[in-house]
Amino acid sequence: MNRIITIGREFGSGGRTIAKQVAEKLGIPCFDSELLVRIAEESGFDEKFVSERGDTMSLSTVISRGLSGQGYYNYLNTDDHLWEVQRKVICELAEKESCVIVGRCADYILRDKADCLNVFIYADMEKRAERIVNVYGESSDAPIKRLKKKDKNRKAFYEYHTDVRWGDTHTYDICLDSSELGIEKCVEIIASLY
Amino acid sequence: MNRIITIGREFGSGGRTIAKQVAEKLGIPCFDSELLVRIAEESGFDEKFVSERGDTMSLSTVISRGLSGQGYYNYLNTDDHLWEVQRKVICELAEKESCVIVGRCADYILRDKADCLNVFIYADMEKRAERIVNVYGESSDAPIKRLKKKDKNRKAFYEYHTDVRWGDTHTYDICLDSSELGIEKCVEIIASLY
Repeated sequence: MNRIITIGREFGSGGRTIAKQVAEKLGIPCFDSELLVRIAEESGFDEKFVSERGDTMSLSTVISRGLSGQGYYNYLNTDDHLWEVQRKVICELAEKESCVIVGRCADYILRDKADCLNVFIYADMEKRAERIVNVYGESSDAPIKRLKKKDKNRKAFYEYHTDVRWGDTHTYDICLDSSELGIEKCVEIIASLY
Repeated sequence: MNRIITIGREFGSGGRTIAKQVAEKLGIPCFDSELLVRIAEESGFDEKFVSERGDTMSLSTVISRGLSGQGYYNYLNTDDHLWEVQRKVICELAEKESCVIVGRCADYILRDKADCLNVFIYADMEKRAERIVNVYGESSDAPIKRLKKKDKNRKAFYEYHTDVRWGDTHTYDICLDSSELGIEKCVEIIASLY
């Protein structure tokens, strides 16, 4: 059975960077934006849409869920279709090879299908605020507001599709504060557990 | 400045065992029941009382808090006196030498006073239930009920005395699932972070 590392992360915690470095250290692929491309190809949705709707869920999405009809007679609407494709792509990846997968409920999707190490990366609010401005640039919203919104939408998406709590210790095997331990040490610990 | 490792833990997660092994590996003292003795000596309370009331708080304690008068004119009651002695003993220990401290809000008490690595150990409910029967024996209450009660009381105590959440990732630098990772691996990770 392949060994999969799934990485859940707070926005701005450096989870994506940690995932990439762990994969590099272990010589296995890391699926983050690479996952988007595959899901977009299989679903017919465009990458930006997959990026926005495949890992977060806004309150308006929750409310507006209904019969939007994407031509798949057995899917109720856009989000169900996207979820189904995403689930399928993640299962196929895990079946094919050992890898690191970032976000997208991979831990939950693979819970009975692969040998997973489930990691959650979090960090101090102030350090995350600094990081998102450095990595993604300024925006009209203040950094703290952006963080809270993105985390809330990730949490909503995760908890809509699973029966466990996003960011709660019991959902993961190990939870690491990247602002206290540092990116490098997080990478080292995760790789040592593989 | 001394380096202190504080270990918060769910009941039955093996946190105490992990703490002892980490301390042994690092050649520093571990304060768990040793802490009780010191607190008992300084406070005048008996060890069993310190053990029961210095790390957990039952709902009846919360309700019955009032003027119980322990002869300390500036302490409102028994629990405040115990807390104050506990706080003092923990600060003195941290000032004296590097060590591992189990529970008792040490992470919060030392937040501005020492260089701390704050760890939380948790585990799968079923494995914890097995463990408490092995370690502490049977009791009239079913294991799961005992676990839930003890955790609830630890949480109540912690959150009464601090402004952060017990068992919440952000309260700690690292959170480890001992049932998934194993005691030995947890010890190795914590020691490597020291």
